[in-house]
Amino acid sequence: MSTIGVLGGGQLARMLALAGAPLGVRFLIVDNVADACAGQVAPLLVADWRDFAALERFAAQIDVATFDFENVPADTAHWLTEHTRVSPNPRALALAQDRLAEKSMFRELGLETPAFATVDSREDLVRAAATIGFPAVLKTRRLGYDGKGQFRLRSADDIDAAWRALGGAPSILEAWVAFEREVSVVAVRGRDGAFATYPLVQNWHSDGILSASLAPAPDAAGLAELATHHARRIAEHLDYVGVFALELFVRDGKLLGNEMAPRVHNSGHWTIEGAPCSQFENHVRAVLGLPLGDTAALGVSVMLNWIGQLPDAGPVLREPRGHWHDYGKSPRAGRKVGHATLCAGNAADLGEALARVARALGREAQAAPVLAALHGAR
Amino acid sequence: MSTIGVLGGGQLARMLALAGAPLGVRFLIVDNVADACAGQVAPLLVADWRDFAALERFAAQIDVATFDFENVPADTAHWLTEHTRVSPNPRALALAQDRLAEKSMFRELGLETPAFATVDSREDLVRAAATIGFPAVLKTRRLGYDGKGQFRLRSADDIDAAWRALGGAPSILEAWVAFEREVSVVAVRGRDGAFATYPLVQNWHSDGILSASLAPAPDAAGLAELATHHARRIAEHLDYVGVFALELFVRDGKLLGNEMAPRVHNSGHWTIEGAPCSQFENHVRAVLGLPLGDTAALGVSVMLNWIGQLPDAGPVLREPRGHWHDYGKSPRAGRKVGHATLCAGNAADLGEALARVARALGREAQAAPVLAALHGAR
Repeated sequence: MSTIGVLGGGQLARMLALAGAPLGVRFLIVDNVADACAGQVAPLLVADWRDFAALERFAAQIDVATFDFENVPADTAHWLTEHTRVSPNPRALALAQDRLAEKSMFRELGLETPAFATVDSREDLVRAAATIGFPAVLKTRRLGYDGKGQFRLRSADDIDAAWRALGGAPSILEAWVAFEREVSVVAVRGRDGAFATYPLVQNWHSDGILSASLAPAPDAAGLAELATHHARRIAEHLDYVGVFALELFVRDGKLLGNEMAPRVHNSGHWTIEGAPCSQFENHVRAVLGLPLGDTAALGVSVMLNWIGQLPDAGPVLREPRGHWHDYGKSPRAGRKVGHATLCAGNAADLGEALARVARALGREAQAAPVLAALHGAR
Repeated sequence: MSTIGVLGGGQLARMLALAGAPLGVRFLIVDNVADACAGQVAPLLVADWRDFAALERFAAQIDVATFDFENVPADTAHWLTEHTRVSPNPRALALAQDRLAEKSMFRELGLETPAFATVDSREDLVRAAATIGFPAVLKTRRLGYDGKGQFRLRSADDIDAAWRALGGAPSILEAWVAFEREVSVVAVRGRDGAFATYPLVQNWHSDGILSASLAPAPDAAGLAELATHHARRIAEHLDYVGVFALELFVRDGKLLGNEMAPRVHNSGHWTIEGAPCSQFENHVRAVLGLPLGDTAALGVSVMLNWIGQLPDAGPVLREPRGHWHDYGKSPRAGRKVGHATLCAGNAADLGEALARVARALGREAQAAPVLAALHGAR
């Protein structure tokens, strides 16, 4: 019987624990808040990331440590490698924590990115803006997620506001990409180097937070192959073990690297019902050295994120292939509190189910771009 | 946020908790052993079934009580109804605890059964044997499961041994049925009376314990309809809320009622991956008054039970549609410690996957009757 330790006790840790339990895997979650929602389904150790006495107890009880989020302090991750197996390795984690290092790696490995420049001072920002032009986005190098730590600049008039908004933290200025669409590929690499990707997913964001995902992304055969190629290069370069996601922009039919998440990813939640082996089970399998599971799509799936608070579950539960996920969190503005996945055998049936659910919940705006993509795919 | 209390903390409670968690449902398990395997995934209250002080604490924390097994004392179930909602109702539970009451109800509702007679004394047994003939099976009226509390009589010479083996407990003598096959139907009824059945399943037993299930049962269209009819009559008669299973023999192409299980059932484990909404999720939905989920089969599935100890998981994990379930129990002869489910789009593909797994695990004997049934179905 193996025990996986998870740093961070949010919904990703929760879904990892639920996916690992059927395999007979035990979990131990460590989080700095006592009501971390993963603690509802697995033992929870409440400790600060730098409480090394607690981490020593944690390490002694587990076979491998992994992460529910990427912003675990680098020294904590390093300390862990001296006390237990850690997957993914701290180098991959550190790289994904730093937008500059991440984008530099993308380019080094042949994946184009939007134009960007390092910004360590107000003068850097002025210089970078002159090179990159407007619109542009100033992003902190570290600790950004779900649109946090970002400021969009429309003109030179926004430079002061942007610099103040990010508090002068080390940042990058990035060209604003007028993309045709956003896609992501969720990949998994085993201890033995086995590699697999789920079908390419199309994503829609709202206020910087993922709003909906459609899998497989329609009309994306060539892009999917290319995305898999890039994901494989990154995985091998980092000697990565586990699941990660690579977020990409599509512009002029070409892929641009946006960011990687060194963990299971929101754009892969559809795999719980839409693939034979979910991203969560595959992460568990990978970090334990078990054979990877099948990543094919079973039909088509759409995932709708619930942000702030949950809508009524009824309309989703009444759909024959509707699946409800309540993370057991209390409501809070901007917080991911749950999601729903709808599955179907084809795009037309999925569109009908999605339209019914959206109408019943008054979520037409959230569903509209997905419906348009599904309609184009018919 | 609702909390379901489960009496009994075995693998059924464990799988209920895992199925309910995505719906945001919390669980509280009560069992009289501290290492009950459901306690690995949900809070566990260790208490005797007649510790009413503990049950009072239990009832105060839950919205509805349900059962992982049917042998909860009737007075405990009744006591609970005065302190919380209980589903299924104690009448259904009591009926399923008593083979005589159960079989009498089957007949009353138009479902034929094997010939049987009540046996409360050695004299009764002699008389019953004269009426029913041989072979026959003596079964205790209460507390029988997985072949326990049964004795097969080949001739009048076995009467004394049978009577001793069952310790003189109130029993029934039942004609031994030379059945063509064993099938079961897993049904669910909601609080509002909504009713659904999963496709008919064909089952194979070994030493009285379920060994394998195949869903849907091949060539069984007429039988499935009839089984659903009987399940519905029983559900309505008992005002049943939740999932139950009806086990049936097929003889001369006709159905005979064997027994009902007032709970999720081993022959429904395939629904976790083989149906849009599993029997576990549907039980959760039913007892909470939520809409029932879709019970259609997604392709074909076979479930293999692991009894005593787990085989190597590798061959199952390497199958694209192979799913592994380790209940987190320690090995023990005759104990259900896990199961595997293989899914496929058609009988031929399922047969190939099953043959590969059986060969790799040296489980050819367990798989052989399933393979024969699949072969006949092509």
